[in-house]
Amino acid sequence: MGMVGGGRGAFIGQVHRMAANLDGKIELVAGAFSADPEKARLSGEDFFLDPDRVYATYEEMVEKESSREDGIDFVSIVTPNYLHFPPAKAFLEAGINVICDKPMTLSLDEALELKSIVEKTGKVFALTHNYTGYPMVKEARRMVKDGELGRILKVVAEYPQGYATGSVDEVVEGPIGGWRTDPKKSGISNCMADIGTHAHNLLRYITGLEVTDICSHLSTFIPGRELEDDGNNLLKLDNGASGVLHASQICNGDENALNIRVYGTKASLEWHQEDPNELIVKYHDAPRRIYRRGNDYLSDAANGNGFTRTPFAHPEGFIEAFANIYLAAAQAIADQIDGNPAPEGGYDFPAVDDGVAGMAFIETAIKSGQSDEKWTSFPTFS
Amino acid sequence: MGMVGGGRGAFIGQVHRMAANLDGKIELVAGAFSADPEKARLSGEDFFLDPDRVYATYEEMVEKESSREDGIDFVSIVTPNYLHFPPAKAFLEAGINVICDKPMTLSLDEALELKSIVEKTGKVFALTHNYTGYPMVKEARRMVKDGELGRILKVVAEYPQGYATGSVDEVVEGPIGGWRTDPKKSGISNCMADIGTHAHNLLRYITGLEVTDICSHLSTFIPGRELEDDGNNLLKLDNGASGVLHASQICNGDENALNIRVYGTKASLEWHQEDPNELIVKYHDAPRRIYRRGNDYLSDAANGNGFTRTPFAHPEGFIEAFANIYLAAAQAIADQIDGNPAPEGGYDFPAVDDGVAGMAFIETAIKSGQSDEKWTSFPTFS
Amino acid sequence: MGMVGGGRGAFIGQVHRMAANLDGKIELVAGAFSADPEKARLSGEDFFLDPDRVYATYEEMVEKESSREDGIDFVSIVTPNYLHFPPAKAFLEAGINVICDKPMTLSLDEALELKSIVEKTGKVFALTHNYTGYPMVKEARRMVKDGELGRILKVVAEYPQGYATGSVDEVVEGPIGGWRTDPKKSGISNCMADIGTHAHNLLRYITGLEVTDICSHLSTFIPGRELEDDGNNLLKLDNGASGVLHASQICNGDENALNIRVYGTKASLEWHQEDPNELIVKYHDAPRRIYRRGNDYLSDAANGNGFTRTPFAHPEGFIEAFANIYLAAAQAIADQIDGNPAPEGGYDFPAVDDGVAGMAFIETAIKSGQSDEKWTSFPTFS
Amino acid sequence: MGMVGGGRGAFIGQVHRMAANLDGKIELVAGAFSADPEKARLSGEDFFLDPDRVYATYEEMVEKESSREDGIDFVSIVTPNYLHFPPAKAFLEAGINVICDKPMTLSLDEALELKSIVEKTGKVFALTHNYTGYPMVKEARRMVKDGELGRILKVVAEYPQGYATGSVDEVVEGPIGGWRTDPKKSGISNCMADIGTHAHNLLRYITGLEVTDICSHLSTFIPGRELEDDGNNLLKLDNGASGVLHASQICNGDENALNIRVYGTKASLEWHQEDPNELIVKYHDAPRRIYRRGNDYLSDAANGNGFTRTPFAHPEGFIEAFANIYLAAAQAIADQIDGNPAPEGGYDFPAVDDGVAGMAFIETAIKSGQSDEKWTSFPTFS
Repeated sequence: MGMVGGGRGAFIGQVHRMAANLDGKIELVAGAFSADPEKARLSGEDFFLDPDRVYATYEEMVEKESSREDGIDFVSIVTPNYLHFPPAKAFLEAGINVICDKPMTLSLDEALELKSIVEKTGKVFALTHNYTGYPMVKEARRMVKDGELGRILKVVAEYPQGYATGSVDEVVEGPIGGWRTDPKKSGISNCMADIGTHAHNLLRYITGLEVTDICSHLSTFIPGRELEDDGNNLLKLDNGASGVLHASQICNGDENALNIRVYGTKASLEWHQEDPNELIVKYHDAPRRIYRRGNDYLSDAANGNGFTRTPFAHPEGFIEAFANIYLAAAQAIADQIDGNPAPEGGYDFPAVDDGVAGMAFIETAIKSGQSDEKWTSFPTFS
Repeated sequence: MGMVGGGRGAFIGQVHRMAANLDGKIELVAGAFSADPEKARLSGEDFFLDPDRVYATYEEMVEKESSREDGIDFVSIVTPNYLHFPPAKAFLEAGINVICDKPMTLSLDEALELKSIVEKTGKVFALTHNYTGYPMVKEARRMVKDGELGRILKVVAEYPQGYATGSVDEVVEGPIGGWRTDPKKSGISNCMADIGTHAHNLLRYITGLEVTDICSHLSTFIPGRELEDDGNNLLKLDNGASGVLHASQICNGDENALNIRVYGTKASLEWHQEDPNELIVKYHDAPRRIYRRGNDYLSDAANGNGFTRTPFAHPEGFIEAFANIYLAAAQAIADQIDGNPAPEGGYDFPAVDDGVAGMAFIETAIKSGQSDEKWTSFPTFS
Repeated sequence: MGMVGGGRGAFIGQVHRMAANLDGKIELVAGAFSADPEKARLSGEDFFLDPDRVYATYEEMVEKESSREDGIDFVSIVTPNYLHFPPAKAFLEAGINVICDKPMTLSLDEALELKSIVEKTGKVFALTHNYTGYPMVKEARRMVKDGELGRILKVVAEYPQGYATGSVDEVVEGPIGGWRTDPKKSGISNCMADIGTHAHNLLRYITGLEVTDICSHLSTFIPGRELEDDGNNLLKLDNGASGVLHASQICNGDENALNIRVYGTKASLEWHQEDPNELIVKYHDAPRRIYRRGNDYLSDAANGNGFTRTPFAHPEGFIEAFANIYLAAAQAIADQIDGNPAPEGGYDFPAVDDGVAGMAFIETAIKSGQSDEKWTSFPTFS
Repeated sequence: MGMVGGGRGAFIGQVHRMAANLDGKIELVAGAFSADPEKARLSGEDFFLDPDRVYATYEEMVEKESSREDGIDFVSIVTPNYLHFPPAKAFLEAGINVICDKPMTLSLDEALELKSIVEKTGKVFALTHNYTGYPMVKEARRMVKDGELGRILKVVAEYPQGYATGSVDEVVEGPIGGWRTDPKKSGISNCMADIGTHAHNLLRYITGLEVTDICSHLSTFIPGRELEDDGNNLLKLDNGASGVLHASQICNGDENALNIRVYGTKASLEWHQEDPNELIVKYHDAPRRIYRRGNDYLSDAANGNGFTRTPFAHPEGFIEAFANIYLAAAQAIADQIDGNPAPEGGYDFPAVDDGVAGMAFIETAIKSGQSDEKWTSFPTFS
C-alpha cells in the first residue's frame, strides 16, 4: 500500500493507516505525503519507510512504483478534494488500484470521467464512505433488501455537527480548516460535500433507493465564508417515498450525529452513528427490537467477511468500520491479483458509481439551493 | 366547569377531565356531551352530574348556564375541529370563559374572527397546546429568553407517529378516526392540523420566533384519503434562522415522538416528549448538561406556579402537563372573577393569538404543498 | 374518602389526593389533617371541606364518621410511620376501610396484629407500595407468571437516592425530614424502611418469590444520625435464586432510581422507575425487545382494569401509578359495599400480607446488619 | 513483539494483535502459538512470519529470541490462566519484557513470586486489564484524584454477562470454553477470575481505593460445573466506603455490561463499558454533566499520550482501549531500551501490583464464598 497525502499531523491519513493496519494484512511501503519535502521526509520516518519510496510528488510515485517489481498493489488518496481526481487518474492508468477519500472529485464531470477510466482500466476503485462499514448498517441494508420493512414510505437522514460553531460570531479560520471552505480546493460546496454526502450515501446504501428530486435550503452562517455551512433538504425518492436530509456544521454541541430513520409499511428502523452497535427496529403492532452487533442472530451481512472482529458488547467503532472498507477492497484487489472471481453478490465497498451519485447529489443540492423552484431533478445517466 | 363534547368513550374528553381534576380545585358540573341524547345522559351519570345540567345541545347549555347564579365559570370545548368555533363564540358572547382544544378553528378567517370576539368580550380563552405545559419545556423557553443559547441559528422540530401505518396497505377506517380525515369536519388538513401544529406551537413557545416562510412537501400515503398524512417542511424564521419541521402519521412504530432541537451560538437544547422530564443542553466547548424536572436548580419557570407537583424523578407525564394548561387558565379565570390583576409577565397558557398563528401555519403549509414555488410566505396581521 | 395526616404542605398527602382525584370517582369529604388545629382548619379550607368534617384527632374522626349515615367509605392514612397502626386499627374496628402509607407499622409484631384485625373485620386494607401500580410492572409480573422468563436465577433490585447527600459533611436537619431519622417515629430503620422496602416489595410483586435469607451491610454516613442511610444486601430467594438489593440516600445526584433486573433461564427483564413506560426484555439468542406502555400488544395485566389511561407515548408517571393503587382498592371497596364478589384472580393492590412481608424485611435486614453471621433467616409465619 | 498462545482461531490472541497493530509501531515477528505443530505453522503463515521464528514451545522461543541480536523486545502471553506464570517467568529472567493476559497467575503465591521476579529483573511487565485503557475511564480516575467527587462514600461495580445462559438447563460444553471451567487450567475460580477481577481492577483504578473485606455469595447454576458462574459481593473499602460488586455469566441477554458507579460527597460518576465514550457526572444540586471522549474540555489523562485517536463522536471501542495498554507499555519498553527516564507520574498501564491485587481478590472472594462468617479480610503485604 502507498499513500498520497496524509503526512504527519493529518487526521484522515492517520485514520486510513489505522484502518489498513488493523487486521495485520496490509503494509504501508510508499508515499507522497506532502508537498513540503521536509514534512514528507519526516512522515516517511514516522511510518518506518524506505526513504527511496518516500516521494516528492504523486507523479514521481506513480512512475517509480509502477516500474518496481515489488511496487504497491494499491494507493490510498487522502488529499483535499481538488487533489483526488488527478492522482486517481494517474495511478489507475498506470495499473495501480485506488482507495480514495470522498467526495470523489471536484465536479460531476470529473466523476463521470473517472468512472470511464475505472471501467477502461478494470482496476479496483474504492471510495471511503466509511459509515457503510458498520456491521449494523450492513444488517439494516439486508433487512430492507429482504423486505422486512415492507415498502419504504419515508426516510429521514441527518448529520448535525457543531464543530464550526465557535466561528459563527467572528471571522476566524477555525477548526473547519482552510481548504474545506475554499472553493478552489473543496469545490462548490462545503457542508453538503463534507457530510451531507455521507448522509446521502447512507440513505442509498441502506434503502437501495435513489433520490430523484431535491429541494434545498442552504445557509452560510459563518461570516466571510463563501460556501454553505448548513443545509436542509426535502427529497423525492424513486419509489415514491418522501425524504428529509439535513446536515450542518453549526449545530452547537452536536458531534458526529449521523442518524437515519427508514419507515416502511411493515416495520421501520433507525441507526445512530454515535451508538453504532445498535440497530432499532420498530413495529406498530409489536414490541421494538434492538439488534446488537456481534450476536449470532444477525445475518452474514453483519457477521460474515470478517466485518465483525469482537464478540457482542465489546464496542466496535469508527476505526473498525473504516477498516471494513479496506478489508473488502483489499479482498477485491487480492482476488484480481490472484485471478479469483468476485464472490456471488459482489464486494461490499463503495465504488465509483457511488462517487458519481455523490457528486450528483452535491451539484444538484447546490443548484437547488440557488433556485426559486421547489424541486430540482437529479441528472440521469444512461 | 362545563364541557362540550367528550362524552363516554371519547379519549380527549377524558384527558381534559383528568387534567382538570388533578389538583382538586375544578369540578365538572355541566355538559353537552353528545348529540346522541342517550349517550349524553349516560355521560352525565358517569360524571355524577345533576341531570338538569346535562344538556342536549351547546346552545341550550349556553342559555341555561349563563342565566344560573351558580353557572359554570368556564367551558371546555373538546369536539371535532369544525365544532370549535361555534360554541366558543357562543359561550364567550354569553360571558363564559373558554378552554378549547386545538386546532382552534376550521380556518384562519374563523380564527381571526374568534380573536376579535375574545378581545371584545374580554373573557379568558385558552387553547390546549398541552405540550407547552411540561415544566422542562417552560425551562427551555426561559433559557432562550435569558439568552443562554445566544442567537438562534437553526431549529429542528419533528412529530413522527405510526398509528395510521396499519391503513397504508388497505383502505380502512382505522385508528385515525373518521372525522380527522373528513375535510368537512377537520378542515383542509389532517396531519399538519393534528400534530404539525403542535410542533409549530412548541417551536414558537420555546424560541419566541415566528415562521415567516415555509416550503412544504405533503404526501397522502393511505389510499382513499383526501387529506395528507405526512408532511416535510423547510422553514425560514424571523431572525434569519433556518428550520425543519416534519410530522407524519405513517412512521411505523413511532408513538408520540414530538421532539425539538434548538441550536444557538452559545448552546443548543433538545427535548423529547417521550422523555419529558429531561432537558439536554449542549455546548461545543463544555460537557453536556442534563436538566431534570423537580430539582431546585431549575428556575421559577419550571418550579413555580404549581407547575411541578412531585419531587425529582417521580416521573410526571402527559396528564400533568395538560393539567398545567388548566392550572394557568384557571388562575386567569379566578383572577378575573376576583378582580385581581394579572401577574407580572402574564399567564403561561396558550391563548387566542397562538390559535391564530396555528391556523396560519396550517393554511400556509397546505398552500405551499400545492405550490411549485419554493417559498410561501405566512400572512401578516396588523 | 377521609384522610388522616397530609395537611397543607405535606408532600405525600398531596400525592394521595391527586391519585384519588385523578379518575373523578373519589371525593375527599373529611379529615384529621394535623395535630395543629389552625393547620387542620386551613387544610380543610384548601380542600373545600365542610368544617364539621375537619377533625382535631383521628379518634374524633372515627367516632363521628362511623356514626354518620353518609360517613366516609374509606380513610387514607398518610402520617409518619408511628402513626400508621393506631388509626388503622381504630378505623378498621369501626368498620371503615383503610388505605395506608408504607411501611405499614412500626414493627413486625404490630404488623401481625394488624393482619389479624384486617382478617377479623373483613374490611379492605390497601398499602401504597405505589411502584407496583405502573402498568409495565404489571406486565413484567405477568411475564414471569406465564413462564416467559423460564426459571428465575438471579434478581438485582436497587434504589439509590441522593437527596441526603448535602447532609453528609455537616450535621443538619436536611431534606430527609426530622421524623424519618427519629427512631421513635420511624422505627428501627430509616433507609431500609423508607425505600429498601419498596425494592423488596417490587421484587416480590414481579417475581412471586420470597426472600428467605439476607446478609446486610448497613452504614450511617450522616454524622449524628442514629439510623442507617445506606444498605447493601445479599439475598437468597425461595426458589434457589441469588439476589442483590441495595438502597441508599447518599448516592449523590441519583434521584429516585428504583431499578430491577430479573434474570431467568429463557429471558430476563429490566425496568427502571425513572423511565417507567418501558420494559426491556433480553434474550441470549434473539434481539432485545422493548415493550412500551399503551400498546395493544400488551396483556390485560397492563391494559385492563383502567390501569392505562392514555395512548402509547403519552408518558404516564408517578401519579398515575399511585392512582392505580387507589383504583384497585376503590374497586374492592365498591364491590364490598355493593355485595359483588371479587373478580377471578383477585384485586391487584398491595394488601396486609405485603405489609407483613415488608416489616419482616425491615426487621431482618436490621438484625443482619448487626450480626457477624453471614446469613440471617427471615421469620416464617404459619 | 512475540506471542505465546493466540494461534489461528483464538479470540484473545487476535485482539492482542489488533491492539498491537493499531498504531503501526509494533510488529509481530515471532511466536509459540500452539502446542499443535501444524496449527503453530499455519498461524505463522497467517501472520506473515519467518518460519524460523515460529516456535514449538515457549521454552525454545525464550532461548532463541534471547540470543538473537534482533530478538523481540517483548512478548505477549495470551494462553489459558495456568500457562501465564511459567512463560512470564522464563521471558523475564531471559531479559525480555512481558505483556500478559489476566488473571495474572493461578494463585496469589505465584503472583507474589512473579512480582519479585519483575522487581529483580527490572523488566517491564504489563497486565491487560484492558478496560482501564478507555479514555473516559482515565478521565474518571483523574476526577477522583483531583477531588472533584469529594470523599468517596460508596461504589457499585457490576459485570453481568449472559453468554453461559444456554448451558443452564443442560450439561453442555457451551461457549464458556472448556478450560475456563476446569480448575486445573483456570485456577480456583471461573466467574470471579474471568470478569469479577475486571470489575475489581476498574474500581481500584478509578477510585484509588483498596478493598479490605469482602462478603461473597457464589453460585454455580450450570449443572456439572465445579466452579462458580455467579457471584454477589459486599465490600468494605479502605477509606470507610461501602461497596457492592456483582458479576455473573448467567444473566440472560446481558452482553459485556461492565458498569461502575462511584458516589462521593461532592459528586458521583458512572461509566458503562457498552457506552464507553461517555462519562456521566451527577450532583445533588446541579444538572448532570455528560463528558464525551475526544473533546478539548477533557484533561490530558484522556486526551494525552496518544490515548485518543479520533475526534469526538467517532466512536472508539474495545480495540482502541486495548491498544492503549499496548501503547503505554510499549512506551515504557522503548524508554527502557533508549535509557530514557519514566515520565513524571509514571506510566499508565496495569502492572504486576495490579496482578497481585487481582489474585488477592480472587482468592479472598472464593474463601469468603465458602465461609459462614460475614466478612473475610484481604491479605496484606508488607
